[in-house]
Amino acid sequence: MPLTRIDIPSGKPPEYRATLRDVVYETLNTVMGVPDDDRFEVITEHDPENLNISSDYLGIERSAEAVVIQITLNEGRAVEMKRAFYAALVAALHNRLGIRREDVVISLVEVKTENWSFGNGVATYAQG
Amino acid sequence: MPLTRIDIPSGKPPEYRATLRDVVYETLNTVMGVPDDDRFEVITEHDPENLNISSDYLGIERSAEAVVIQITLNEGRAVEMKRAFYAALVAALHNRLGIRREDVVISLVEVKTENWSFGNGVATYAQG
Amino acid sequence: MPLTRIDIPSGKPPEYRATLRDVVYETLNTVMGVPDDDRFEVITEHDPENLNISSDYLGIERSAEAVVIQITLNEGRAVEMKRAFYAALVAALHNRLGIRREDVVISLVEVKTENWSFGNGVATYAQG
Repeated sequence: MPLTRIDIPSGKPPEYRATLRDVVYETLNTVMGVPDDDRFEVITEHDPENLNISSDYLGIERSAEAVVIQITLNEGRAVEMKRAFYAALVAALHNRLGIRREDVVISLVEVKTENWSFGNGVATYAQG
Repeated sequence: MPLTRIDIPSGKPPEYRATLRDVVYETLNTVMGVPDDDRFEVITEHDPENLNISSDYLGIERSAEAVVIQITLNEGRAVEMKRAFYAALVAALHNRLGIRREDVVISLVEVKTENWSFGNGVATYAQG
Repeated sequence: MPLTRIDIPSGKPPEYRATLRDVVYETLNTVMGVPDDDRFEVITEHDPENLNISSDYLGIERSAEAVVIQITLNEGRAVEMKRAFYAALVAALHNRLGIRREDVVISLVEVKTENWSFGNGVATYAQG
């Protein structure tokens, strides 16, 4: 159910992009309880002047390698689960891809369960 | 009022993309009650490694031709209207463009009516 | 905290794009109370057939130069603040870049404060 939009600097090799997608999905799966195989990911690459990430907001030094990960998902997850997700995702991106911990910007957009169709024109999760 | 983001594989001809936009708008117009001429559409084309759609989530076989349609719209539509929209959109995309029914992923993001300005810096739908 | 997505016609010079980003940030800062240095901006450029903006919805004549500005931000701002933001943003884009007032489409997406991480895997604004 999550739809993940990832915005990154242009020019990263395919392996980097595939691992980035994998890490986001695997962390959603293990920490957020997202089902197996439930992955829908869009990566957009940008020239430097089109991806502007604050280099110092809140005293965090972000670099030109910073990435933005915006995830649309069902509403209702607890704050503690979101906290755990952010921490696990940043740790895994650092461990697997060497991305600096300062360089990961995450945004969640929550929607109702009835707001999805994952094929065949069915409201996948609608109740009642 | 809807803002529609469509993410598709690169390389489709302009006619395909224009019809895809038209079908989404026409279905919003006829099923969701969106006003005439109320269409704001952004298409982004992606190389295969940047558009990753689950090939089997929920047992639905999606192909490399799958499209993602994410629509930001005013909150408050009934579940039954959303169900009807998904069904009608998938049927129309299949009939008009031959898109497989399994290959249409739809996401709705609902916002308050006051959250739009469609020109001249006016809050188009704000009440009071 | 705002994450700003700006969709524009391809081919604008870097100075235009930088000023566009600056104007959005400065207006968020002065009118919406967004903190200093809190700016995260993604610009995507589109060929004409991939950016379709209604040329007459509500009797407003939009041109091929129209831009779409979609901002994800924390929920809870008053309607009057949003109204002031739209008016100020459109005025500033007109004054600084000559963008026609009819050609600015703005969409706000509101989220909970706990839905952000701006580095180091911390839930930047989560309470409790």
